[in-house]
Amino acid sequence: MKSNYVRIFDTTLRDGEQSPGASMSSAEKLEVARSLARLGVDVMEAGFPAASPDDLEAVRRIATEVGNPSDGTPPPVICGLARAVKGDIDKAWEAVRPAANPRIHIFLATSDIHMQHKLRMSRDQVLRTVEEMVAYAYSLCQEVEFSPEDAGRSDPEFLYQVLETAIRAGATTLNIPDTVGYTTPEEFGSLIRGIIENTRGIEGCFVSTHCHNDLGLATANTLAGIQAGARQAEVTVNGIGERAGNTSLEEIVMALYTRYPFYNLTTGIDTTQICRVSKLVSNYTGIVVQPNKAIVGSNAFAHEAGIHQDGMLKNQQTYEIMRPETVGVTQSRLVLGKHSGRHALKVRLYELGYDLNDDDLNKAFQRFKNLADKKKTITDADLEALVADEFYQPREIYALDGLQVSCGTMGMPTATVRLRGPDGKLQIQAAVGTGPVDATYKAIDAIVKAPSTLLEFAIHAVTEGIDALGEVTVRIQGTNGSHKLDAQKGIEQPRTFGGHGADTDIVVASAKAYLAALNKLLVVTNHFGPAEVPSVQALTVKV
Amino acid sequence: MKSNYVRIFDTTLRDGEQSPGASMSSAEKLEVARSLARLGVDVMEAGFPAASPDDLEAVRRIATEVGNPSDGTPPPVICGLARAVKGDIDKAWEAVRPAANPRIHIFLATSDIHMQHKLRMSRDQVLRTVEEMVAYAYSLCQEVEFSPEDAGRSDPEFLYQVLETAIRAGATTLNIPDTVGYTTPEEFGSLIRGIIENTRGIEGCFVSTHCHNDLGLATANTLAGIQAGARQAEVTVNGIGERAGNTSLEEIVMALYTRYPFYNLTTGIDTTQICRVSKLVSNYTGIVVQPNKAIVGSNAFAHEAGIHQDGMLKNQQTYEIMRPETVGVTQSRLVLGKHSGRHALKVRLYELGYDLNDDDLNKAFQRFKNLADKKKTITDADLEALVADEFYQPREIYALDGLQVSCGTMGMPTATVRLRGPDGKLQIQAAVGTGPVDATYKAIDAIVKAPSTLLEFAIHAVTEGIDALGEVTVRIQGTNGSHKLDAQKGIEQPRTFGGHGADTDIVVASAKAYLAALNKLLVVTNHFGPAEVPSVQALTVKV
Repeated sequence: MKSNYVRIFDTTLRDGEQSPGASMSSAEKLEVARSLARLGVDVMEAGFPAASPDDLEAVRRIATEVGNPSDGTPPPVICGLARAVKGDIDKAWEAVRPAANPRIHIFLATSDIHMQHKLRMSRDQVLRTVEEMVAYAYSLCQEVEFSPEDAGRSDPEFLYQVLETAIRAGATTLNIPDTVGYTTPEEFGSLIRGIIENTRGIEGCFVSTHCHNDLGLATANTLAGIQAGARQAEVTVNGIGERAGNTSLEEIVMALYTRYPFYNLTTGIDTTQICRVSKLVSNYTGIVVQPNKAIVGSNAFAHEAGIHQDGMLKNQQTYEIMRPETVGVTQSRLVLGKHSGRHALKVRLYELGYDLNDDDLNKAFQRFKNLADKKKTITDADLEALVADEFYQPREIYALDGLQVSCGTMGMPTATVRLRGPDGKLQIQAAVGTGPVDATYKAIDAIVKAPSTLLEFAIHAVTEGIDALGEVTVRIQGTNGSHKLDAQKGIEQPRTFGGHGADTDIVVASAKAYLAALNKLLVVTNHFGPAEVPSVQALTVKV
Repeated sequence: MKSNYVRIFDTTLRDGEQSPGASMSSAEKLEVARSLARLGVDVMEAGFPAASPDDLEAVRRIATEVGNPSDGTPPPVICGLARAVKGDIDKAWEAVRPAANPRIHIFLATSDIHMQHKLRMSRDQVLRTVEEMVAYAYSLCQEVEFSPEDAGRSDPEFLYQVLETAIRAGATTLNIPDTVGYTTPEEFGSLIRGIIENTRGIEGCFVSTHCHNDLGLATANTLAGIQAGARQAEVTVNGIGERAGNTSLEEIVMALYTRYPFYNLTTGIDTTQICRVSKLVSNYTGIVVQPNKAIVGSNAFAHEAGIHQDGMLKNQQTYEIMRPETVGVTQSRLVLGKHSGRHALKVRLYELGYDLNDDDLNKAFQRFKNLADKKKTITDADLEALVADEFYQPREIYALDGLQVSCGTMGMPTATVRLRGPDGKLQIQAAVGTGPVDATYKAIDAIVKAPSTLLEFAIHAVTEGIDALGEVTVRIQGTNGSHKLDAQKGIEQPRTFGGHGADTDIVVASAKAYLAALNKLLVVTNHFGPAEVPSVQALTVKV
């Protein structure tokens, strides 16, 4: 399948979400999926439905809502991952079938080391399984993708045989993963070239790349694969994913875009959406983007200021290979102040992609006024943090009703916390800690009593200026063991929960973030009713 | 110069330090230089001495101390950058001459776009300047390196001519920069190959690569250059640098190491030092490393835990291409508690690389005891934060004497700050803010009166656990305009100042970090005596 169009297959919601602590709530996943659709990805892998009932439900929701756009835009392909077993394929189909364009993605390892140590299967068994399971998936779903896991370390002749089997059984996309991020661009390019030259039937199929960044070569390997003839690239926003992550969506898209005369290839991505999606994913996963990250890092275009300010360099091209506007970098604009009215807020939120009903607008307006009392000017970033904080919290088991803290160099940091519990009653506790956050968390623990370990805690200022809104992300792990099935390793992994909170008071933001994570933990560990995903019935934010 | 040894030229202290907000104090630079020497870099570019007297002094100090190791280890080459003008070369020579192996690195742009818009020089003028200036540098210093800036966009024939001129004038290392991060691996490899094949006299020289990561291809481009015959790679720790940064030292070293059978090339790097240096540079520059950064990100080896814990996968190689120990990843060890004595602290600090005299040990022990009162177990990370906080602060113009804060959801966040000023007197101020940190910063501002803008504010937990030591980094810019000469653009850039503080109370840590940044600002803007670098006379930390 030769053309000059490269399909972008985004797996932020599947392989990206697999990175430690990146787990998102169902509402967050839906919001990311909507943004990916707006970004223009051709395919989105929405999850691994067999991982848990929550995961299946989240994929089904995305397939239903994002897979059937009501505004006449072409529906993206919604894909669900499955191991090469019937149970997984059934669950994947159940999850993706509501989409206008559903796809089932099956994988099975083909390297000797994986077949021997992980699968404990012979080559013949692998061939038979591929044939049976791809055929089974194809009997349910018109589009089937197959991945030979650890293809980079597989015997090429056997690999061709496996791929031919998958094609005969109905697969139309053959995805070649460099599972452990081990190959060089030369090797990965040769691998793809070898497959295209030696696999019977491949001319009617899409060959796809799936690279990992363990040696910092994911982007180069993906481009080498594309140059060798692959026409689908599996990527994640910000390059998140297990270990050193996956190929970055933004790097592939902008390399092809910026170097069009060299590669002569296009994608369907609206590049001006890149920065917005990058921020959304970073906020919801809590995985920070380093300032020196290509394309989406905060410094990626930072030298701009100096040059323009100075006016010494007339020709922008001297130090610039792409315009910040192309990837949607905009200056934080001062949009609203304390005298702005409800209508101004509604209009600005709409421009930012949030279409609120009256009820939610009232709530948002109240929060906006509170913020405007404290902070002179409210920027877009403030508004986004405010809306995200309001609408994308998990189901609230415990809600923060009041917090009072004293700390400093001289005393004993003390926090008094008042929470409204699941029974609607207020509970109050005070605690002393090593600092204000520790004291607050101890007081919360004294009420909530859900033993957990704090794995990560990060605060950053959302906006410039000393009165900035602070955003806190935390990651916790329940000590009583909630687990989730890992697709590739086929084992249960301890589940971690992220929480996120924003406030001009970082101690308050810290309390909100911790409560959000604890509430997720409580929902999943069944302490409070069925392990449903947080209800999104009340969620009226539309993009 | 063909061999299978690739020289690692580290420019963390020059090109890395040029990233916004990365500016380090002289003491911090010296400490990074020591760590780079221990890491085994062949050459370190210690700075751009013409940028400011501070910068010259910092390079001279590194040349003197790190360039002449007293323990018999081979001295690294200490290099100073200079534009192709006499004044710069004189300053570079003054700075590097105390080193056992000094080098002057001269650069001049050779692309039409740069010659026309930045240099306003003709090709002839560029050739004449290269000849004169390289010869002048060679008359002072035995080792001269020359870089044709923006080589990637230069006319190849002219480029060969420039390089031949530089070689005839005495240059022995020819460094080829992809200044704007625009090339693909194929293009950069061809560029290097073309230079090696077409430049007379190049066979006796080292060809070097200097790549930027704007399209996420710096590592691949550098490797392509090495495969084409380059035997020096210019890199930075964590890939820091302007915009999307430079090639990452750790990615190049580990790609060559892990894929030795493919590349058949070695470096002199002690890989087990990589993580330690990575952390040091991240702490001192305040530039965070994203969790999914290759080699040094916190998740790079994170799946390990699951596997070992589970014990299901017998063969480690299934998902592992390098061992965490190889790059110095160690578990945070619980080393000391409140009953540990002074000797235990001294021994552990020595093992971590800090050799304190009695005075400093007493101070450190006092701080250790204070911390141990608050925190049950003290880990290596705690100790390193504690020592860094104690010894690598800039000259203290204002010192924090006391802080008292109250905040929460119910009241008005209020801070009372007591500082000891340059006259030794205590001053006290209270302020109300949008949160505890804002209130604290406003109270500090009321005393210090050095107008500045807060550009960045980040907090992270140093260690796991709710009672973690919090580390805060801030970046400010003086509103009264302190500037610094930018090497490449030849223009004065607004100078930014980073500060860093650690405490179990994040509000206290925030106050310390802000004061550290303000103190740097005050020292440089000459408000307090000569613009000396912070005195390191008192610094007895040895590594």
